[in-house]
Amino acid sequence: VKPGEAPGERPTFSLPVRVYYQDTDAGGVVYHAAYVNFLERARTEWLRKLGFDHRALVGTFGIVFMVHAMEVRYLKPAFMDDTLVIELALRRLGASRLELEQRVLREATTLVEAQVKIACVSIGSFKPVRIPDPIRRKIEE
Amino acid sequence: VKPGEAPGERPTFSLPVRVYYQDTDAGGVVYHAAYVNFLERARTEWLRKLGFDHRALVGTFGIVFMVHAMEVRYLKPAFMDDTLVIELALRRLGASRLELEQRVLREATTLVEAQVKIACVSIGSFKPVRIPDPIRRKIEE
Amino acid sequence: VKPGEAPGERPTFSLPVRVYYQDTDAGGVVYHAAYVNFLERARTEWLRKLGFDHRALVGTFGIVFMVHAMEVRYLKPAFMDDTLVIELALRRLGASRLELEQRVLREATTLVEAQVKIACVSIGSFKPVRIPDPIRRKIEE
Amino acid sequence: VKPGEAPGERPTFSLPVRVYYQDTDAGGVVYHAAYVNFLERARTEWLRKLGFDHRALVGTFGIVFMVHAMEVRYLKPAFMDDTLVIELALRRLGASRLELEQRVLREATTLVEAQVKIACVSIGSFKPVRIPDPIRRKIEE
Repeated sequence: VKPGEAPGERPTFSLPVRVYYQDTDAGGVVYHAAYVNFLERARTEWLRKLGFDHRALVGTFGIVFMVHAMEVRYLKPAFMDDTLVIELALRRLGASRLELEQRVLREATTLVEAQVKIACVSIGSFKPVRIPDPIRRKIEE
Repeated sequence: VKPGEAPGERPTFSLPVRVYYQDTDAGGVVYHAAYVNFLERARTEWLRKLGFDHRALVGTFGIVFMVHAMEVRYLKPAFMDDTLVIELALRRLGASRLELEQRVLREATTLVEAQVKIACVSIGSFKPVRIPDPIRRKIEE
Repeated sequence: VKPGEAPGERPTFSLPVRVYYQDTDAGGVVYHAAYVNFLERARTEWLRKLGFDHRALVGTFGIVFMVHAMEVRYLKPAFMDDTLVIELALRRLGASRLELEQRVLREATTLVEAQVKIACVSIGSFKPVRIPDPIRRKIEE
Repeated sequence: VKPGEAPGERPTFSLPVRVYYQDTDAGGVVYHAAYVNFLERARTEWLRKLGFDHRALVGTFGIVFMVHAMEVRYLKPAFMDDTLVIELALRRLGASRLELEQRVLREATTLVEAQVKIACVSIGSFKPVRIPDPIRRKIEE
């Protein structure tokens, strides 16, 4: 079963994103790194919805979430003017890492699939640290 | 053995890249999608060195190379002012696909590792097509 | 009187934009070229609201709107997590050109001011052409 | 007389830049904000050549140079694969500000002209401060 395709499986979070010129390239389609930006926007909005924007992460907890590894599969192109939906589902919550499944859809069509591993690191040192309990609890809910 | 680490193994191609403000983020490091841009620059320059710039690919052959899948592992951060080297080694040459191993280094330190699968697609339709023989021969050399 | 500051003066169009990591730089603020992207998003959404998305412009009219000149003044920095509003007011509608006044605000504070001159050009040739009448009429309303 | 076109007038500094997919948009040309990135690269390399990279500016002097205002005129499009030259000429050296004239050329053809005002600001506060004397002396040479 592919991510998100099981009947009744629902993403944890989803964010609509519009495609602008700045996201396209001379091939006439969305540039492959632009999706990486879209994926980040969805992750940031998901954390914000849980109550943890960047200022809280840095100011209250002294941490940032950094991408540790990502795997991206490009299935179909997106185009200028498209309205995309960026989905996010939590796959694993470790001591200092999160694994997320993300998808980019145009209506019912999956354009891009991604697995993203996020590390919770201390600001300044960039060393992995335990995900703070208040954040962990909110994610687990 | 990790990619490129075997004694005597040499990349097929390498490109120096400087880090500018535009490549960094508020975490004080190079933004994770910026490496995806760096990787593309090295692939484009490698093809150019083989004699196939974008104009030749489109004009002579009616094709473009598109990223089909990529796996990126972020090992250490890069910073403003860094001079990085983007390496590229061919791993597999299929009928319509290339598999490349890419690395981002700062001197002897590997910062980022990536496997990138590239599809040769027809312009307009974006359907996979056989890599044209003149390109294939040059890549095989 | 500065643009948009006269009492009762209202922008033609405004678009909220969130600041993400991808928009920031190692100085800890929004990177200066990121605002240029924000300004484009507002122009594109304004044209879409008038009924003219990119596909209509290219497909129906064979034109694109290109930035011909811009003047940008950076008054105050924006930061990660900020919600900005990108305003747009039409200043002049010429035969083949538009002049727009744009502003980036965080609540009541103007962060960036811009004057942007847009040329209506024929796709392919990039030569200026008269703004098609249906578009002109909608803009004039 | 247009900037840089007077006989014998030479830029203070110039930097070659290659156009990649990442710099282009679905119009088939270089995206207008990409030039703003190119202009920044040339300014950064000019300061580096004078002995002042970002680390020196922040670490030794506690300052950064921020764009305060810019005026950009787009004369002709650039395309994928183009090799551009980004020129820079100092126009004015104030107490806390620099004014630079910049141009983007493809061989002898000017594609983009820009005037860029840079402010020397204290890190953290972003308040304008006097350009440190060692930097001023190097610029004046």
